[in-house]
Amino acid sequence: MEIVLLGSGNVATHLAKALKAKGENVVQVYSPNLVNAKLLANSIAAEAIGDLNAIKTDADLYIISVKDDAIESIAERLKAVSGLVVHTSGTTDIKVLSAQFKKAGVFYPLQTFSKAKEVDFDRIPLCIEATDAVQLEVLHKLAAKLSQQVYELDGEKRKVLHLAAVFACNFPNHLYALANQILQQNGLDFEIIRPLIAETADKVMNNLPENVQTGPAVRADETTMNKHLSMLKDMPELQEIYQTLSNSIKLMPK
Amino acid sequence: MEIVLLGSGNVATHLAKALKAKGENVVQVYSPNLVNAKLLANSIAAEAIGDLNAIKTDADLYIISVKDDAIESIAERLKAVSGLVVHTSGTTDIKVLSAQFKKAGVFYPLQTFSKAKEVDFDRIPLCIEATDAVQLEVLHKLAAKLSQQVYELDGEKRKVLHLAAVFACNFPNHLYALANQILQQNGLDFEIIRPLIAETADKVMNNLPENVQTGPAVRADETTMNKHLSMLKDMPELQEIYQTLSNSIKLMPK
Repeated sequence: MEIVLLGSGNVATHLAKALKAKGENVVQVYSPNLVNAKLLANSIAAEAIGDLNAIKTDADLYIISVKDDAIESIAERLKAVSGLVVHTSGTTDIKVLSAQFKKAGVFYPLQTFSKAKEVDFDRIPLCIEATDAVQLEVLHKLAAKLSQQVYELDGEKRKVLHLAAVFACNFPNHLYALANQILQQNGLDFEIIRPLIAETADKVMNNLPENVQTGPAVRADETTMNKHLSMLKDMPELQEIYQTLSNSIKLMPK
Repeated sequence: MEIVLLGSGNVATHLAKALKAKGENVVQVYSPNLVNAKLLANSIAAEAIGDLNAIKTDADLYIISVKDDAIESIAERLKAVSGLVVHTSGTTDIKVLSAQFKKAGVFYPLQTFSKAKEVDFDRIPLCIEATDAVQLEVLHKLAAKLSQQVYELDGEKRKVLHLAAVFACNFPNHLYALANQILQQNGLDFEIIRPLIAETADKVMNNLPENVQTGPAVRADETTMNKHLSMLKDMPELQEIYQTLSNSIKLMPK
Protein backbone atom coordinates (compact mmCIF):
# COMPACT_ATOMS: atom_id res chain seq x y z
CA MET A 1 0.00 0.00 0.00
CA GLU A 2 1.42 3.37 -1.05
CA ILE A 3 0.76 6.14 1.45
CA VAL A 4 1.05 9.91 0.94
CA LEU A 5 1.27 11.98 4.12
CA LEU A 6 0.14 15.60 4.04
CA GLY A 7 1.49 17.56 7.00
CA SER A 8 4.67 17.76 9.05
CA GLY A 9 3.42 18.76 12.51
CA ASN A 10 3.39 16.75 15.74
CA VAL A 11 0.74 14.22 14.73
CA ALA A 12 2.15 13.79 11.20
CA THR A 13 5.67 13.30 12.56
CA HIS A 14 4.76 10.64 15.12
CA LEU A 15 2.44 8.90 12.68
CA ALA A 16 5.07 8.84 9.93
CA LYS A 17 7.62 7.26 12.25
CA ALA A 18 5.14 4.67 13.49
CA LEU A 19 4.14 3.76 9.90
CA LYS A 20 7.78 3.45 8.89
CA ALA A 21 8.55 1.32 11.96
CA LYS A 22 5.79 -1.11 10.95
CA GLY A 23 7.16 -1.38 7.42
CA GLU A 24 4.47 0.70 5.76
CA ASN A 25 5.38 2.42 2.52
CA VAL A 26 5.07 6.20 2.89
CA VAL A 27 6.06 7.45 -0.55
CA GLN A 28 5.62 11.21 -0.20
CA VAL A 29 5.48 13.81 2.57
CA TYR A 30 3.93 17.15 1.72
CA SER A 31 4.30 20.42 3.57
CA PRO A 32 3.82 23.94 2.20
CA ASN A 33 7.14 24.55 3.93
CA LEU A 34 9.53 22.38 1.89
CA VAL A 35 12.19 22.46 4.60
CA ASN A 36 9.79 20.83 7.06
CA ALA A 37 8.66 18.33 4.44
CA LYS A 38 12.30 17.37 3.79
CA LEU A 39 13.11 17.01 7.49
CA LEU A 40 10.32 14.52 8.00
CA ALA A 41 10.57 12.80 4.58
CA ASN A 42 14.30 12.19 5.01
CA SER A 43 13.78 10.54 8.37
CA ILE A 44 11.50 7.92 6.78
CA ALA A 45 13.11 7.70 3.33
CA ALA A 46 10.18 9.27 1.50
CA GLU A 47 10.04 11.97 -1.17
CA ALA A 48 9.48 15.52 0.13
CA ILE A 49 7.15 17.82 -1.79
CA GLY A 50 6.32 21.47 -1.18
CA ASP A 51 3.83 21.84 -4.02
CA LEU A 52 0.53 19.94 -4.20
CA ASN A 53 0.85 19.81 -8.02
CA ALA A 54 3.69 17.32 -7.51
CA ILE A 55 1.55 14.88 -5.57
CA LYS A 56 1.24 11.28 -6.76
CA THR A 57 -2.34 10.72 -7.90
CA ASP A 58 -2.29 6.91 -7.83
CA ALA A 59 -1.34 6.21 -4.20
CA ASP A 60 -3.65 4.01 -2.11
CA LEU A 61 -4.01 6.21 0.94
CA TYR A 62 -3.74 9.96 1.55
CA ILE A 63 -3.45 11.02 5.19
CA ILE A 64 -4.19 14.71 5.75
CA SER A 65 -2.63 15.56 9.11
CA VAL A 66 -2.77 19.33 9.35
CA LYS A 67 -4.53 21.96 11.48
CA ASP A 68 -8.31 21.51 11.43
CA ASP A 69 -9.01 24.68 9.47
CA ALA A 70 -6.54 23.74 6.71
CA ILE A 71 -8.02 20.29 5.97
CA GLU A 72 -10.71 21.46 3.59
CA SER A 73 -8.44 23.65 1.46
CA ILE A 74 -5.90 20.85 1.06
CA ALA A 75 -8.66 18.38 0.20
CA GLU A 76 -9.84 20.68 -2.58
CA ARG A 77 -6.42 20.46 -4.17
CA LEU A 78 -6.48 16.65 -4.17
CA LYS A 79 -9.40 16.20 -6.58
CA ALA A 80 -7.30 14.21 -9.06
CA VAL A 81 -6.47 11.39 -6.66
CA SER A 82 -8.28 8.06 -6.74
CA GLY A 83 -7.18 6.52 -3.42
CA LEU A 84 -8.73 6.66 0.03
CA VAL A 85 -8.42 10.12 1.67
CA VAL A 86 -8.51 10.46 5.45
CA HIS A 87 -7.84 13.15 8.03
CA THR A 88 -6.51 12.75 11.59
CA SER A 89 -8.70 15.34 13.34
CA GLY A 90 -10.82 14.73 16.41
CA THR A 91 -13.30 17.47 15.68
CA THR A 92 -13.60 17.63 11.88
CA ASP A 93 -16.54 15.89 10.25
CA ILE A 94 -15.92 13.15 7.71
CA LYS A 95 -18.20 15.13 5.35
CA VAL A 96 -15.42 17.63 4.73
CA LEU A 97 -13.77 14.78 2.82
CA SER A 98 -16.71 12.62 1.71
CA ALA A 99 -18.23 15.61 -0.08
CA GLN A 100 -15.28 15.46 -2.45
CA PHE A 101 -14.03 11.88 -2.43
CA LYS A 102 -15.92 8.63 -2.94
CA LYS A 103 -13.44 6.89 -0.64
CA ALA A 104 -12.97 8.93 2.52
CA GLY A 105 -12.35 8.36 6.19
CA VAL A 106 -10.96 9.46 9.53
CA PHE A 107 -7.89 8.11 11.31
CA TYR A 108 -7.76 9.88 14.69
CA PRO A 109 -5.06 9.01 17.21
CA LEU A 110 -6.25 9.98 20.70
CA GLN A 111 -3.03 11.23 22.23
CA THR A 112 -1.10 14.37 23.13
CA PHE A 113 1.93 14.69 20.88
CA SER A 114 5.00 16.84 21.37
CA LYS A 115 8.00 16.62 19.11
CA ALA A 116 10.19 16.59 22.22
CA LYS A 117 8.88 13.24 23.42
CA GLU A 118 8.70 9.82 21.83
CA VAL A 119 5.43 7.95 22.27
CA ASP A 120 4.65 4.27 22.13
CA PHE A 121 2.11 4.15 19.28
CA ASP A 122 1.16 0.66 20.36
CA ARG A 123 -0.75 2.12 23.30
CA ILE A 124 -2.48 4.94 21.44
CA PRO A 125 -6.21 4.46 20.84
CA LEU A 126 -6.89 4.88 17.13
CA CYS A 127 -10.41 5.99 16.22
CA ILE A 128 -11.49 5.20 12.69
CA GLU A 129 -14.46 6.01 10.49
CA ALA A 130 -15.02 5.54 6.73
CA THR A 131 -17.54 6.10 3.96
CA ASP A 132 -18.13 2.37 3.46
CA ALA A 133 -17.33 -1.03 4.92
CA VAL A 134 -14.52 -1.76 2.45
CA GLN A 135 -12.64 1.43 3.31
CA LEU A 136 -13.30 0.87 7.01
CA GLU A 137 -11.64 -2.52 6.69
CA VAL A 138 -8.59 -0.93 5.02
CA LEU A 139 -8.27 1.52 7.91
CA HIS A 140 -8.91 -1.19 10.49
CA LYS A 141 -6.07 -3.32 9.14
CA LEU A 142 -3.66 -0.41 9.11
CA ALA A 143 -4.70 0.77 12.59
CA ALA A 144 -4.35 -2.74 14.03
CA LYS A 145 -0.75 -2.84 12.79
CA LEU A 146 0.04 0.37 14.66
CA SER A 147 -1.94 -0.02 17.88
CA GLN A 148 -3.56 -2.56 20.16
CA GLN A 149 -6.54 -0.27 20.67
CA VAL A 150 -8.68 0.41 17.61
CA TYR A 151 -12.15 1.92 17.92
CA GLU A 152 -14.73 2.38 15.18
CA LEU A 153 -16.45 5.64 16.11
CA ASP A 154 -18.82 7.86 14.19
CA GLY A 155 -18.24 11.60 14.04
CA GLU A 156 -20.52 12.44 16.96
CA LYS A 157 -18.77 10.02 19.31
CA ARG A 158 -15.37 11.14 18.09
CA LYS A 159 -16.25 14.76 18.90
CA VAL A 160 -17.38 13.73 22.38
CA LEU A 161 -14.10 11.92 22.85
CA HIS A 162 -12.15 14.98 21.78
CA LEU A 163 -14.06 17.09 24.29
CA ALA A 164 -13.42 14.54 27.05
CA ALA A 165 -9.73 14.60 26.09
CA VAL A 166 -9.58 18.33 26.81
CA PHE A 167 -10.80 17.57 30.35
CA ALA A 168 -8.51 14.56 30.79
CA CYS A 169 -5.36 16.00 29.25
CA ASN A 170 -5.21 19.71 28.40
CA PHE A 171 -6.82 20.92 31.63
CA PRO A 172 -4.83 18.63 33.99
CA ASN A 173 -1.61 19.72 32.27
CA HIS A 174 -2.56 23.34 32.83
CA LEU A 175 -3.23 22.61 36.49
CA TYR A 176 0.27 21.11 36.72
CA ALA A 177 1.52 24.42 35.29
CA LEU A 178 -0.42 26.42 37.90
CA ALA A 179 0.98 24.16 40.65
CA ASN A 180 4.44 24.95 39.30
CA GLN A 181 3.61 28.67 39.39
CA ILE A 182 2.67 28.38 43.09
CA LEU A 183 5.84 26.39 43.83
CA GLN A 184 8.17 28.75 41.94
CA GLN A 185 6.81 31.83 43.67
CA ASN A 186 7.82 30.20 46.93
CA GLY A 187 11.22 28.93 45.89
CA LEU A 188 10.17 25.30 45.54
CA ASP A 189 11.07 23.10 42.59
CA PHE A 190 8.56 21.29 40.36
CA GLU A 191 10.57 18.10 40.95
CA ILE A 192 9.09 17.72 44.43
CA ILE A 193 5.58 17.29 43.04
CA ARG A 194 6.32 14.94 40.13
CA PRO A 195 5.80 11.69 42.11
CA LEU A 196 2.35 12.93 43.14
CA ILE A 197 1.40 13.67 39.52
CA ALA A 198 2.60 10.23 38.42
CA GLU A 199 0.68 8.46 41.19
CA THR A 200 -2.52 10.46 40.55
CA ALA A 201 -2.58 9.30 36.93
CA ASP A 202 -1.46 5.77 37.81
CA LYS A 203 -4.29 5.41 40.30
CA VAL A 204 -6.98 5.76 37.62
CA MET A 205 -5.43 3.09 35.42
CA ASN A 206 -7.28 0.50 37.51
CA ASN A 207 -9.88 2.64 39.26
CA LEU A 208 -12.51 5.15 38.22
CA PRO A 209 -11.45 8.67 39.23
CA GLU A 210 -14.68 9.41 41.11
CA ASN A 211 -13.87 6.49 43.42
CA VAL A 212 -10.37 7.66 44.36
CA GLN A 213 -10.82 11.42 44.83
CA THR A 214 -8.80 12.80 47.74
CA GLY A 215 -8.19 16.29 49.16
CA PRO A 216 -10.03 18.90 51.18
CA ALA A 217 -13.01 19.40 48.83
CA VAL A 218 -14.19 15.78 48.81
CA ARG A 219 -13.81 15.71 52.63
CA ALA A 220 -15.78 19.00 52.81
CA ASP A 221 -12.87 20.33 54.90
CA GLU A 222 -13.87 24.00 54.83
CA THR A 223 -11.08 25.04 57.21
CA THR A 224 -8.35 23.90 54.82
CA MET A 225 -10.15 25.27 51.76
CA ASN A 226 -10.47 28.68 53.41
CA LYS A 227 -6.76 28.64 54.31
CA HIS A 228 -5.91 27.81 50.69
CA LEU A 229 -8.16 30.56 49.34
CA SER A 230 -6.52 33.12 51.59
CA MET A 231 -3.04 31.95 50.50
CA LEU A 232 -4.16 32.70 46.91
CA LYS A 233 -5.38 36.22 47.71
CA ASP A 234 -2.78 37.80 45.39
CA MET A 235 -3.61 35.38 42.58
CA PRO A 236 -7.33 36.02 41.92
CA GLU A 237 -7.32 33.87 38.78
CA LEU A 238 -6.09 30.84 40.73
CA GLN A 239 -8.52 31.64 43.51
CA GLU A 240 -11.40 31.47 41.03
CA ILE A 241 -10.17 28.15 39.65
CA TYR A 242 -9.77 26.78 43.18
CA GLN A 243 -13.31 27.81 44.07
CA THR A 244 -14.89 26.55 40.84
CA LEU A 245 -13.23 23.13 40.95
CA SER A 246 -13.75 22.65 44.69
CA ASN A 247 -17.46 23.39 44.29
CA SER A 248 -17.63 20.92 41.44
CA ILE A 249 -15.94 18.22 43.56
CA LYS A 250 -18.44 18.86 46.36
CA LEU A 251 -21.36 18.47 43.93
CA MET A 252 -20.08 15.16 42.54
CA PRO A 253 -22.41 12.25 43.34
CA LYS A 254 -20.67 9.70 45.56
CA MET B 1 13.65 2.86 68.08
CA GLU B 2 10.15 2.13 69.40
CA ILE B 3 7.38 3.78 67.43
CA VAL B 4 3.74 4.32 68.38
CA LEU B 5 1.37 5.06 65.54
CA LEU B 6 -1.81 6.99 66.24
CA GLY B 7 -4.35 6.59 63.46
CA SER B 8 -5.59 3.88 61.09
CA GLY B 9 -6.59 5.80 57.98
CA ASN B 10 -4.98 5.84 54.53
CA VAL B 11 -1.77 7.63 55.48
CA ALA B 12 -1.34 5.66 58.73
CA THR B 13 -1.89 2.36 56.93
CA HIS B 14 0.61 2.98 54.14
CA LEU B 15 3.13 4.45 56.56
CA ALA B 16 2.81 1.50 58.96
CA LYS B 17 3.45 -0.97 56.16
CA ALA B 18 6.44 0.98 54.90
CA LEU B 19 7.93 1.19 58.40
CA LYS B 20 7.43 -2.53 58.93
CA ALA B 21 8.96 -3.31 55.52
CA LYS B 22 12.10 -1.39 56.51
CA GLY B 23 12.39 -3.28 59.79
CA GLU B 24 11.23 -0.44 62.03
CA ASN B 25 9.68 -1.38 65.34
CA VAL B 26 6.08 -0.15 65.51
CA VAL B 27 4.98 -1.29 68.95
CA GLN B 28 1.43 0.09 69.17
CA VAL B 29 -1.32 1.22 66.83
CA TYR B 30 -4.04 3.39 68.30
CA SER B 31 -7.46 4.08 66.88
CA PRO B 32 -10.60 5.16 68.78
CA ASN B 33 -12.19 2.36 66.78
CA LEU B 34 -10.49 -0.74 68.18
CA VAL B 35 -11.54 -2.90 65.23
CA ASN B 36 -9.62 -0.59 62.87
CA ALA B 37 -6.66 -0.49 65.24
CA LYS B 38 -6.58 -4.31 65.30
CA LEU B 39 -6.83 -4.63 61.54
CA LEU B 40 -3.78 -2.47 61.02
CA ALA B 41 -1.84 -3.61 64.11
CA ASN B 42 -2.24 -7.29 63.19
CA SER B 43 -0.86 -6.68 59.72
CA ILE B 44 2.38 -5.33 61.19
CA ALA B 45 2.57 -7.45 64.37
CA ALA B 46 1.97 -4.52 66.75
CA GLU B 47 -0.32 -4.14 69.73
CA ALA B 48 -3.71 -2.58 69.01
CA ILE B 49 -5.14 -0.07 71.47
CA GLY B 50 -8.49 1.70 71.45
CA ASP B 51 -7.92 3.76 74.58
CA LEU B 52 -5.25 6.44 74.90
CA ASN B 53 -4.80 5.56 78.58
CA ALA B 54 -3.18 2.32 77.44
CA ILE B 55 -0.49 4.07 75.43
CA LYS B 56 3.16 3.33 76.13
CA THR B 57 4.74 6.47 77.59
CA ASP B 58 8.38 5.55 76.99
CA ALA B 59 8.44 4.99 73.23
CA ASP B 60 10.92 7.00 71.14
CA LEU B 61 8.57 8.32 68.47
CA TYR B 62 4.84 9.03 68.37
CA ILE B 63 3.38 9.53 64.89
CA ILE B 64 -0.05 11.19 64.92
CA SER B 65 -1.61 10.38 61.56
CA VAL B 66 -5.24 11.42 61.86
CA LYS B 67 -7.56 14.05 60.36
CA ASP B 68 -6.16 17.57 60.76
CA ASP B 69 -8.82 18.70 63.20
CA ALA B 70 -8.24 15.72 65.49
CA ILE B 71 -4.48 16.22 65.91
CA GLU B 72 -4.69 18.73 68.75
CA SER B 73 -7.13 16.77 70.88
CA ILE B 74 -5.03 13.60 70.57
CA ALA B 75 -1.87 15.54 71.42
CA GLU B 76 -3.51 16.83 74.60
CA ARG B 77 -3.99 13.23 75.72
CA LEU B 78 -0.30 12.41 75.20
CA LYS B 79 1.11 14.74 77.86
CA ALA B 80 2.76 11.91 79.77
CA VAL B 81 5.00 10.80 76.92
CA SER B 82 8.67 11.74 76.76
CA GLY B 83 9.54 10.82 73.16
CA LEU B 84 9.43 12.82 69.96
CA VAL B 85 5.87 13.58 68.81
CA VAL B 86 5.15 14.30 65.12
CA HIS B 87 2.13 14.65 62.89
CA THR B 88 1.80 13.81 59.17
CA SER B 89 -0.32 16.75 58.07
CA GLY B 90 0.49 19.11 55.19
CA THR B 91 -1.44 22.03 56.59
CA THR B 92 -1.13 21.81 60.37
CA ASP B 93 1.47 24.00 62.05
CA ILE B 94 4.21 22.37 64.11
CA LYS B 95 3.11 24.70 66.95
CA VAL B 96 0.07 22.53 67.60
CA LEU B 97 2.60 20.00 68.90
CA SER B 98 5.55 22.15 70.04
CA ALA B 99 3.21 24.07 72.38
CA GLN B 100 2.88 20.83 74.36
CA PHE B 101 6.01 18.80 73.70
CA LYS B 102 9.65 19.80 73.95
CA LYS B 103 10.48 17.33 71.19
CA ALA B 104 8.05 17.81 68.32
CA GLY B 105 8.07 17.60 64.55
CA VAL B 106 6.32 17.02 61.26
CA PHE B 107 6.65 14.00 58.99
CA TYR B 108 4.56 14.78 55.90
CA PRO B 109 4.45 12.34 52.99
CA LEU B 110 3.44 14.21 49.83
CA GLN B 111 1.27 11.64 48.13
CA THR B 112 -2.33 10.65 47.45
CA PHE B 113 -3.17 7.50 49.37
CA SER B 114 -6.06 5.12 48.85
CA LYS B 115 -6.37 1.86 50.69
CA ALA B 116 -7.23 0.19 47.39
CA LYS B 117 -3.80 0.83 45.87
CA GLU B 118 -0.29 -0.04 46.99
CA VAL B 119 2.27 2.74 46.67
CA ASP B 120 6.03 2.60 46.41
CA PHE B 121 7.10 4.60 49.46
CA ASP B 122 10.56 4.84 48.03
CA ARG B 123 9.35 7.44 45.55
CA ILE B 124 7.27 9.51 47.96
CA PRO B 125 8.73 12.90 48.91
CA LEU B 126 8.90 13.12 52.71
CA CYS B 127 8.81 16.64 54.13
CA ILE B 128 10.21 16.97 57.63
CA GLU B 129 10.41 19.70 60.24
CA ALA B 130 11.41 19.60 63.93
CA THR B 131 11.78 21.74 67.04
CA ASP B 132 15.58 21.36 67.07
CA ALA B 133 18.52 19.98 65.09
CA VAL B 134 18.74 16.76 67.09
CA GLN B 135 15.12 15.83 66.48
CA LEU B 136 15.43 16.87 62.83
CA GLU B 137 18.31 14.42 62.49
CA VAL B 138 16.19 11.64 64.01
CA LEU B 139 13.45 12.32 61.48
CA HIS B 140 15.93 12.66 58.63
CA LYS B 141 17.41 9.24 59.34
CA LEU B 142 14.01 7.59 59.50
CA ALA B 143 12.78 9.39 56.38
CA ALA B 144 15.90 8.42 54.43
CA LYS B 145 15.23 4.77 55.22
CA LEU B 146 11.74 5.03 53.73
CA SER B 147 12.26 7.29 50.74
CA GLN B 148 14.87 8.57 48.34
CA GLN B 149 13.37 12.06 48.47
CA VAL B 150 13.58 13.84 51.81
CA TYR B 151 12.98 17.58 52.10
CA GLU B 152 13.49 19.77 55.14
CA LEU B 153 10.69 22.32 54.87
CA ASP B 154 9.36 24.87 57.31
CA GLY B 155 5.63 25.17 57.93
CA GLU B 156 5.09 27.98 55.43
CA LYS B 157 6.71 26.07 52.58
CA ARG B 158 4.91 22.88 53.56
CA LYS B 159 1.57 24.68 53.37
CA VAL B 160 2.49 26.03 49.93
CA LEU B 161 3.34 22.51 48.85
CA HIS B 162 0.03 21.21 50.13
CA LEU B 163 -1.79 23.91 48.15
CA ALA B 164 0.21 23.07 45.01
CA ALA B 165 -0.68 19.42 45.56
CA VAL B 166 -4.38 20.25 45.36
CA PHE B 167 -3.73 21.75 41.91
CA ALA B 168 -1.46 18.89 40.81
CA CYS B 169 -3.48 15.98 42.17
CA ASN B 170 -6.99 16.59 43.51
CA PHE B 171 -8.10 18.89 40.67
CA PRO B 172 -6.67 16.77 37.82
CA ASN B 173 -8.34 13.69 39.31
CA HIS B 174 -11.65 15.53 39.37
CA LEU B 175 -11.17 16.53 35.74
CA TYR B 176 -10.64 12.84 34.91
CA ALA B 177 -13.97 12.22 36.66
CA LEU B 178 -15.68 14.92 34.58
CA ALA B 179 -14.17 13.43 31.41
CA ASN B 180 -15.66 10.10 32.47
CA GLN B 181 -19.04 11.79 32.99
CA ILE B 182 -18.93 13.14 29.42
CA LEU B 183 -17.90 9.73 28.06
CA GLN B 184 -20.54 7.78 29.99
CA GLN B 185 -23.35 10.07 28.90
CA ASN B 186 -22.41 9.18 25.34
CA GLY B 187 -21.94 5.45 25.81
CA LEU B 188 -18.13 5.56 25.75
CA ASP B 189 -15.92 3.76 28.25
CA PHE B 190 -13.30 5.43 30.45
CA GLU B 191 -10.80 2.82 29.20
CA ILE B 192 -10.45 4.64 25.89
CA ILE B 193 -8.99 7.72 27.57
CA ARG B 194 -6.60 6.04 30.02
CA PRO B 195 -3.56 6.05 27.69
CA LEU B 196 -4.00 9.80 27.21
CA ILE B 197 -4.07 10.40 30.98
CA ALA B 198 -0.94 8.27 31.45
CA GLU B 199 0.93 10.09 28.70
CA THR B 200 -0.11 13.55 29.94
CA ALA B 201 1.42 12.82 33.34
CA ASP B 202 4.43 11.04 31.87
CA LYS B 203 5.22 14.02 29.67
CA VAL B 204 5.86 16.32 32.65
CA MET B 205 8.26 13.87 34.27
CA ASN B 206 11.00 15.34 32.06
CA ASN B 207 9.41 18.60 30.94
CA LEU B 208 7.77 21.57 32.60
CA PRO B 209 4.00 21.52 31.99
CA GLU B 210 3.91 25.05 30.61
CA ASN B 211 6.25 23.92 27.80
CA VAL B 212 4.14 20.97 26.67
CA GLN B 213 0.60 22.35 26.79
CA THR B 214 -1.55 21.15 23.88
CA GLY B 215 -5.22 21.57 22.91
CA PRO B 216 -7.52 24.24 21.50
CA ALA B 217 -6.97 26.90 24.19
CA VAL B 218 -3.19 27.17 23.83
CA ARG B 219 -3.64 27.32 20.04
CA ALA B 220 -6.32 30.02 20.53
CA ASP B 221 -8.56 27.84 18.36
CA GLU B 222 -11.85 29.66 19.04
CA THR B 223 -13.83 27.55 16.54
CA THR B 224 -13.14 24.33 18.43
CA MET B 225 -13.66 25.95 21.84
CA ASN B 226 -17.05 27.30 20.73
CA LYS B 227 -18.04 23.85 19.45
CA HIS B 228 -17.06 22.33 22.79
CA LEU B 229 -18.98 24.94 24.77
CA SER B 230 -22.11 24.30 22.72
CA MET B 231 -21.72 20.53 23.26
CA LEU B 232 -21.77 21.28 27.00
CA LYS B 233 -24.93 23.39 26.87
CA ASP B 234 -26.86 20.94 29.07
CA MET B 235 -24.01 20.78 31.60
CA PRO B 236 -23.62 24.40 32.74
CA GLU B 237 -21.19 23.45 35.52
CA LEU B 238 -18.81 21.82 33.04
CA GLN B 239 -19.28 24.74 30.68
CA GLU B 240 -18.12 27.12 33.41
CA ILE B 241 -15.07 24.95 34.16
CA TYR B 242 -14.25 24.74 30.45
CA GLN B 243 -14.44 28.51 30.11
CA THR B 244 -12.49 29.28 33.28
CA LEU B 245 -9.63 26.89 32.52
CA SER B 246 -9.46 27.80 28.83
CA ASN B 247 -9.18 31.49 29.72
CA SER B 248 -6.45 30.67 32.20
CA ILE B 249 -4.52 28.69 29.56
CA LYS B 250 -4.80 31.63 27.14
CA LEU B 251 -3.42 34.01 29.79
CA MET B 252 -0.41 31.81 30.57
CA PRO B 253 2.88 33.47 29.61
CA LYS B 254 4.68 31.54 26.86
